[in-house]
Amino acid sequence: MALARSIAVLIGGVGGAKLASGLLDAVPAERLAFIVNTGDDFRHLGLKICPDLDTLMYTLAGLVNPVSGWGLKDDSIAALDFLAQCYQVEPWFRLGDKDLATHLLRTHWLNGGRSLTEATACLTKRLGIRAAIFPMCDEELPTIVETLADGELGFQEYFVKRAWQPVVRALRYENCERAKLSPQVHSALVNADIVLIAPSNPWLSIAPILSIPGLRDLLSQLMAPVVAVTPIIAGDAVKGPTAKIMRELGLDVCARTVARFYQGIISGFVDDIRNDPADFADLRSVQLNTLMNDQADKVALARATLDWIGSWSA
Amino acid sequence: MALARSIAVLIGGVGGAKLASGLLDAVPAERLAFIVNTGDDFRHLGLKICPDLDTLMYTLAGLVNPVSGWGLKDDSIAALDFLAQCYQVEPWFRLGDKDLATHLLRTHWLNGGRSLTEATACLTKRLGIRAAIFPMCDEELPTIVETLADGELGFQEYFVKRAWQPVVRALRYENCERAKLSPQVHSALVNADIVLIAPSNPWLSIAPILSIPGLRDLLSQLMAPVVAVTPIIAGDAVKGPTAKIMRELGLDVCARTVARFYQGIISGFVDDIRNDPADFADLRSVQLNTLMNDQADKVALARATLDWIGSWSA
Repeated sequence: MALARSIAVLIGGVGGAKLASGLLDAVPAERLAFIVNTGDDFRHLGLKICPDLDTLMYTLAGLVNPVSGWGLKDDSIAALDFLAQCYQVEPWFRLGDKDLATHLLRTHWLNGGRSLTEATACLTKRLGIRAAIFPMCDEELPTIVETLADGELGFQEYFVKRAWQPVVRALRYENCERAKLSPQVHSALVNADIVLIAPSNPWLSIAPILSIPGLRDLLSQLMAPVVAVTPIIAGDAVKGPTAKIMRELGLDVCARTVARFYQGIISGFVDDIRNDPADFADLRSVQLNTLMNDQADKVALARATLDWIGSWSA
Repeated sequence: MALARSIAVLIGGVGGAKLASGLLDAVPAERLAFIVNTGDDFRHLGLKICPDLDTLMYTLAGLVNPVSGWGLKDDSIAALDFLAQCYQVEPWFRLGDKDLATHLLRTHWLNGGRSLTEATACLTKRLGIRAAIFPMCDEELPTIVETLADGELGFQEYFVKRAWQPVVRALRYENCERAKLSPQVHSALVNADIVLIAPSNPWLSIAPILSIPGLRDLLSQLMAPVVAVTPIIAGDAVKGPTAKIMRELGLDVCARTVARFYQGIISGFVDDIRNDPADFADLRSVQLNTLMNDQADKVALARATLDWIGSWSA
């Protein structure tokens, strides 16, 4: 039975959280461990902001804003408006009032000496989330975007302030040589019956995770199936800059490019039914509906992916 | 003309801010310097909160909540509610969403190395306040309340969490021996034509200011008139624990007790018309309406006080 297996998921933000939401309906929460990109994290007004951790937490707690896919539903923005209007602080990074509560509490705990792994465990527990959510590491590993015209940009400056419009020449995962695989991430991976790579941006969301020394080797040595879900459907990304970045890096915008990016790590690849059938060389592959427009789509993709992987040993 | 003189005011929170508001209507803002109690300051969720500075800033900026006399008008409380409901953080200290903006920005600046004097100057400037607002010092000087039944309590624990119900045995201004008179406070006092002590709580709001080494001596040596306004009207405080604390400290709840508390510092005392005429020994004194129910009362008290002091040299 697929339902009893432990599943570890490498994951980024909004796109990945859709699959996470499906998995939560398909698998007992206690069997799920998410290993989350923190390359997007930054400090804003002294607050530690972890966009991908928050998106996943809010999604799994049933609190996410269903329209944007990130932030909290029914949130207001009084604090940021006041900062802008009365203190002339440019509100380029949108933070809701309720959302601020998360950043305040996390920052308070981090400044008090807790690790990000510990702080995340406390937040998720208080939110009633029973799945495990681990930051990819406890060190700060900011993603740096080398742009054609504007030099190096911090991730949020590129992504939010500049609305991912600058042309990307390369990506750098700063400090990655100093990052350590946390015991929690290591344990989640070695104990997983299945490892999934969510349909997140491979370069912005998954590559930072893979840049942690030892993680790539660990994945390649696992006996468990490691399966990626395509973030590319019909030659484009569902949302966000994946396809744009691929073009800017001189890559073909297709599922095969993504599969090749994960070469040596994955044993299987979930392609989309809309894509032209492709040859994924020595990988097992399947075509499923990976476009998740509603909760039924999310659960169906989660179940179909797990069923397909379950069929390997049959 | 009284209107052209420079006025320095030692001041606490809500009660003092009423007189400050009156002074702002009676005197050009540029001639006003407020030296504000910071004994109530504390850190909450990592944020530096300065209740008396905020009350005065919001009052002078015309943003204060007119009902409570502190906090911002038209503020919401989404962040704190979310902290309570989703993260089980007890919301004992009420912080509005807009109000959070002030604490965030100040904390960010302080953590970045600015002094409280500098951070306050930046905040007031951005709020469009033309009067000078100085924290009494840059060091942290937390007021500690020694209670009869509950030992020592931090100020906000006594004042807000326990609603000033514990019986006070003594007050202590921690670290006061290490505090330094800032150049700004020194300059405001030596350049003042008049120094006022606002009708704030003498033990909770003014005594912390007076505990700064050198301040008491400086005040006693000034040539300018130093005048206190009674916080006691008809045997009681208008609001807050002044009268209660006086009783608990074994003091007579009357204006004379307050005047005696400021002995050696003040040269004049503004008593209230409702009080029994008292003998203030070698002090000049006058009875005015010190009960400030509306803006007209505030301005009238400010003008009458300055006119009275102006008449000394006549």
